[in-house]
Amino acid sequence: MACGSCCVELTSCVFEYDTPRIVLIKSTKVGLMNRVVQLMILAYVIGWVFVWEKGYQEFDSVVSSVTSKVKGIAVTNTSELGLKVWDVADYIVPAQEENAFFVMTNVIITQNQKQGLCPEFPDDTTRCKSDSDCVKGYVGTHSNGFQTGKCVAFDNSSEKTCQVFAWCPVENDTAVPKPAFLKDAENFTVLIKNNIWYPKFNFSKRNILSNVSTAYLKQCVYNRFTDPFCPIFRLGSIVSEAGQDFQDMAVTGAVMGIQIRWDCNLDRRDSYCLPRYSFRRLDNREIDHDVSPGYNFRFAKYFKGETGVEMRTFIKAYGIRFDILVFGTAGKFDIIPTMINIGSGVALLGVATYLCDFIVLHILQKRNYYREKKYKYVEDYELGPNNNYGSQP
Amino acid sequence: MACGSCCVELTSCVFEYDTPRIVLIKSTKVGLMNRVVQLMILAYVIGWVFVWEKGYQEFDSVVSSVTSKVKGIAVTNTSELGLKVWDVADYIVPAQEENAFFVMTNVIITQNQKQGLCPEFPDDTTRCKSDSDCVKGYVGTHSNGFQTGKCVAFDNSSEKTCQVFAWCPVENDTAVPKPAFLKDAENFTVLIKNNIWYPKFNFSKRNILSNVSTAYLKQCVYNRFTDPFCPIFRLGSIVSEAGQDFQDMAVTGAVMGIQIRWDCNLDRRDSYCLPRYSFRRLDNREIDHDVSPGYNFRFAKYFKGETGVEMRTFIKAYGIRFDILVFGTAGKFDIIPTMINIGSGVALLGVATYLCDFIVLHILQKRNYYREKKYKYVEDYELGPNNNYGSQP
Amino acid sequence: MACGSCCVELTSCVFEYDTPRIVLIKSTKVGLMNRVVQLMILAYVIGWVFVWEKGYQEFDSVVSSVTSKVKGIAVTNTSELGLKVWDVADYIVPAQEENAFFVMTNVIITQNQKQGLCPEFPDDTTRCKSDSDCVKGYVGTHSNGFQTGKCVAFDNSSEKTCQVFAWCPVENDTAVPKPAFLKDAENFTVLIKNNIWYPKFNFSKRNILSNVSTAYLKQCVYNRFTDPFCPIFRLGSIVSEAGQDFQDMAVTGAVMGIQIRWDCNLDRRDSYCLPRYSFRRLDNREIDHDVSPGYNFRFAKYFKGETGVEMRTFIKAYGIRFDILVFGTAGKFDIIPTMINIGSGVALLGVATYLCDFIVLHILQKRNYYREKKYKYVEDYELGPNNNYGSQP
Repeated sequence: MACGSCCVELTSCVFEYDTPRIVLIKSTKVGLMNRVVQLMILAYVIGWVFVWEKGYQEFDSVVSSVTSKVKGIAVTNTSELGLKVWDVADYIVPAQEENAFFVMTNVIITQNQKQGLCPEFPDDTTRCKSDSDCVKGYVGTHSNGFQTGKCVAFDNSSEKTCQVFAWCPVENDTAVPKPAFLKDAENFTVLIKNNIWYPKFNFSKRNILSNVSTAYLKQCVYNRFTDPFCPIFRLGSIVSEAGQDFQDMAVTGAVMGIQIRWDCNLDRRDSYCLPRYSFRRLDNREIDHDVSPGYNFRFAKYFKGETGVEMRTFIKAYGIRFDILVFGTAGKFDIIPTMINIGSGVALLGVATYLCDFIVLHILQKRNYYREKKYKYVEDYELGPNNNYGSQP
Repeated sequence: MACGSCCVELTSCVFEYDTPRIVLIKSTKVGLMNRVVQLMILAYVIGWVFVWEKGYQEFDSVVSSVTSKVKGIAVTNTSELGLKVWDVADYIVPAQEENAFFVMTNVIITQNQKQGLCPEFPDDTTRCKSDSDCVKGYVGTHSNGFQTGKCVAFDNSSEKTCQVFAWCPVENDTAVPKPAFLKDAENFTVLIKNNIWYPKFNFSKRNILSNVSTAYLKQCVYNRFTDPFCPIFRLGSIVSEAGQDFQDMAVTGAVMGIQIRWDCNLDRRDSYCLPRYSFRRLDNREIDHDVSPGYNFRFAKYFKGETGVEMRTFIKAYGIRFDILVFGTAGKFDIIPTMINIGSGVALLGVATYLCDFIVLHILQKRNYYREKKYKYVEDYELGPNNNYGSQP
Repeated sequence: MACGSCCVELTSCVFEYDTPRIVLIKSTKVGLMNRVVQLMILAYVIGWVFVWEKGYQEFDSVVSSVTSKVKGIAVTNTSELGLKVWDVADYIVPAQEENAFFVMTNVIITQNQKQGLCPEFPDDTTRCKSDSDCVKGYVGTHSNGFQTGKCVAFDNSSEKTCQVFAWCPVENDTAVPKPAFLKDAENFTVLIKNNIWYPKFNFSKRNILSNVSTAYLKQCVYNRFTDPFCPIFRLGSIVSEAGQDFQDMAVTGAVMGIQIRWDCNLDRRDSYCLPRYSFRRLDNREIDHDVSPGYNFRFAKYFKGETGVEMRTFIKAYGIRFDILVFGTAGKFDIIPTMINIGSGVALLGVATYLCDFIVLHILQKRNYYREKKYKYVEDYELGPNNNYGSQP
């Protein structure tokens, strides 16, 4: 290329064509070896980089929006609450979320709490024998309120605990109902609507495919084999697909992941770009290394009592939170990665020459003969241009 | 490079300089062609890869946090509810979300529900003539409760439906109010605060730009042309920018995307890194391939009746969920991609030589002459070094 | 390579080995220079690209799921509300969110609102002297309801404001309690459970590390130096780590980012893949360029009054929203980027030859001597093959 000479003799540079001088060695062994190495590199570049890994494509990550709607009715019959029917407004808390929904499967309800004085729930830190065991103003990590410094009898029993100022009576969450309160939740269904967008390619698609009829959507239920594109899922199936037991999970709650993968090759037709569903448990199952296993949270329904005093129904809700995780990449032909990969491939082809040179010039018996042909030895100028350089020809 | 010889004759290797021998062919045609091909490749590498696609930059994806605040008052006057005013606490459900907000635009309210026995809402599956048409314990997909097995008159009408144990009276959602109940929502405004962060470059910015005064922010409303950086949006404008009709959307609900694109070139000044807003409808408009079109969800307000019995106001809320989708990439000069692209460009320049060689040696009339100059033919050693190789010196 | 000749003389092509002819110049100066340039490029490719930037790896972005649970009790004693205890169900609104949680730290409560007529809260736009100052049906940006057109006395004071149909009495949010109402929130703790997944490598991990015992988790609190992997955080520490003042923040609210960075080298053992926590304030602190500084939102608790009329407790909740931002990349050895970088590196090594050639052929005093050795000048065919080309043998 020697383009530096352009600056010196610009015209001659433009009208000159420079190409490396080549030795062509007619040798079956070396020739074959050289071609095999070149073919392997070519096969790698074309086969692996271009065909398999689509090195000619540019990629983009998904932007997603999800809505969900759960359907189902559960009936419970307990001594405390009596016969009770639970519908969507009762067991979905909060009523809507962005990329998740929570289905309450178990519950500890403390009714008619109001602010006042009452004995703490008995445990190692709250049991007392006399007032001196209770510290006025103390609030522990698991306290329900702040201690008044008195030691009083708990629930007319012989047990005594420190008195607290709290929402009274305090919650008793030691016995989690088993089997789970809303065990019928296994048969609830959820409709998931997912809209994705690849901003770089301005390509958007929905998980409700356009070749599916409303009639089908009204009655289908997702099944990995028979109905892989039905957007309606039975909660029990989601859990069992992840290799878990729903009734077991329902007792203390869990976090489940509904994964929607959108891997799209936008060089092909849109209709090949399809959602793939998979399911995974996200919370920790190793009981040994966990604090507060399962999944639960507390909330309250507030109301005014007869005298205008604020009261509440305090609810510790155990349940399954379903996180809808949408991910994926779309690829489309783009000149930049193509050229980067071609350039890289060409450079790798050059490696074939180095490799063969090494074998030819250093390993083969006839190496000195080949070396003579390839190299021209030139002594430094200081030694004089009139020297015999010992170079072939 | 022949660095393998280093191992054999290290010193000679270090003090030797090897460079390919070149044939310089003085030919206007071939020389010009060669330079043109080289220039084209150079122009591609510099122009496209570096200037247009910023191949010298490393990229990072955005990490974002969004808060929103809706303002506005709506008044409705219906026979059922009378004159009623709706403020933020009434129509925003839930009160706050992370990257979204829901504005209730239409509503079906079922007041004073309590658990008990009542006839199902009449439809194809619930109508009955006698008790034998109703299955005790049956719960269908659209049931409001579980059937007791009795067939009773619905609402003092001549129609008879299966009796259910449910929250009674059951909801009648057949007639969606039209025009939408809170049609005034079109004039509500929302303030969106968005904080973005590029972790790789530790660069953060807010969509409330620092060169904007509080006075401006207090009165501005986003407009694509006149106020493109005002973070306050009129709901009606968002919908119309997306090419939709607000009043139409308000009836059955919808999901709208507020897209904030942060494409930043961090090699330039911070003040050029600006948010770009765009709007898009995210839910399915194709009525043919959809289940439960629009967007709605159910929730309830619970209270205690006079006798301490739990009652609720059951609400089916139709409305527009606005999803705030933040995306974008920031680029900044980095040595790695620069070198990858330069290396790739250099390799591509080599392709020019191959191309010209092919033309010179195989297509031009004088190909044999050029070939003689470029190649030195060497027979294999077996044929003896004393052979006449037929090579041009 | 000259593979075009394959088409002409395929067999000869396969059994031929072509390698460039090289001039080996024995010169200490030029030889050393060449090796130094080559070493520098090699050092860059190996040291920087491979060792430092892990150019041999493929990367993937994190898919994350977060749950959080706050613990703590606060006590307040005000003239308006009396002695009151606040627990999780009172100050966490909504009860659960996906990647965030909101802790109420300050509050303006308007009790027993019901729909009706009342005077607007006095400000510049609502004060009036007579009915003519009020426009019937007018609703402003900051209105609490729609004006009836009457001008009435506000709260038995001499001040007169326009009457509105609204939830009455209207909220007075001019005086934000200071110090913050729930200033005790500083000592609340939050347990954050984070599950991450790298889909490309099918690698998942939790922030509750498997080598940590339950006993430790029950009592630990995060500290950057002593307990960097404890998933339980004191809210006050989060804020002070971000260089902010909790009590100051608690008054008007704020948005805090809890950043969890998962940068994993999956070529190493799993146990080296660890979460790194950092904290940052996300909302705007520049009072000059902000609307509605801090963070607050309004919600209501609804109940039925004695006569069955709907009433509500209207709450303007100031507080700190903690956004949990999970990000990071995992890298694992992959053949594609390795080959791209090697190819690019090989091409860059070629640059060394160009560079040295330029120096040797254009700058060194002996340039003409070297040029003679490297180049063979060939005149164009037109000038006749019988010419003396003037080429060095």
